[in-house]
Amino acid sequence: MAKLDARLDLHFAALGDPTRRAILSRLARGPASVSELAAPHDMALPSFMGHLKKLEDAGLITTVKEGRVRHCQLAPDAFAPVQDWLGEQRALWNGRLDRFDDYVANLMKDRNR
Amino acid sequence: MAKLDARLDLHFAALGDPTRRAILSRLARGPASVSELAAPHDMALPSFMGHLKKLEDAGLITTVKEGRVRHCQLAPDAFAPVQDWLGEQRALWNGRLDRFDDYVANLMKDRNR
Repeated sequence: MAKLDARLDLHFAALGDPTRRAILSRLARGPASVSELAAPHDMALPSFMGHLKKLEDAGLITTVKEGRVRHCQLAPDAFAPVQDWLGEQRALWNGRLDRFDDYVANLMKDRNR
Repeated sequence: MAKLDARLDLHFAALGDPTRRAILSRLARGPASVSELAAPHDMALPSFMGHLKKLEDAGLITTVKEGRVRHCQLAPDAFAPVQDWLGEQRALWNGRLDRFDDYVANLMKDRNR
């Protein structure tokens, strides 16, 4: 649980920045080199590399260096932990609505008796 | 776009902490007072209130004070912006897989010609 919590912390923190989200959206379309990824961003390369490092440390992307070019791609199932957490919240919420439905159904039954 | 980005920044930052995620999970089950919410957490009240404030500032929860008791509840559609963003990434990714399918289908067609 603590390990999953730590991973969710990293994932959510990594997602809390528009540049990093733009990088992920680009990589969802397919792999790209660092220079292709950096091109649309008006940012010094060391800052941009910092964003890539945060995404890689969080396990959201993987990078491989071939010669002088570093290739990046989205990690398989990158968004699964976040998606699973949101799914759990929805299940809790729906459980609450179901209990409310039961409550109303019982009220109606009592009333029609 | 910038406004949506700013909201996503706040949401993801608010979600990047296990105490705040636990508060949201509790509230997904139904509204609760601050003292009910704080009970399971071994934390000084001012720190706990800081977490609630982050969640409220992000628009993930709403709070109302009645007399001396503050009641908290999950905001309606609290997770919609995050869920929508994840949905967009899935659509991009699926678009990529569709293009790959088309590519393979065309290869096979050329081969069978």
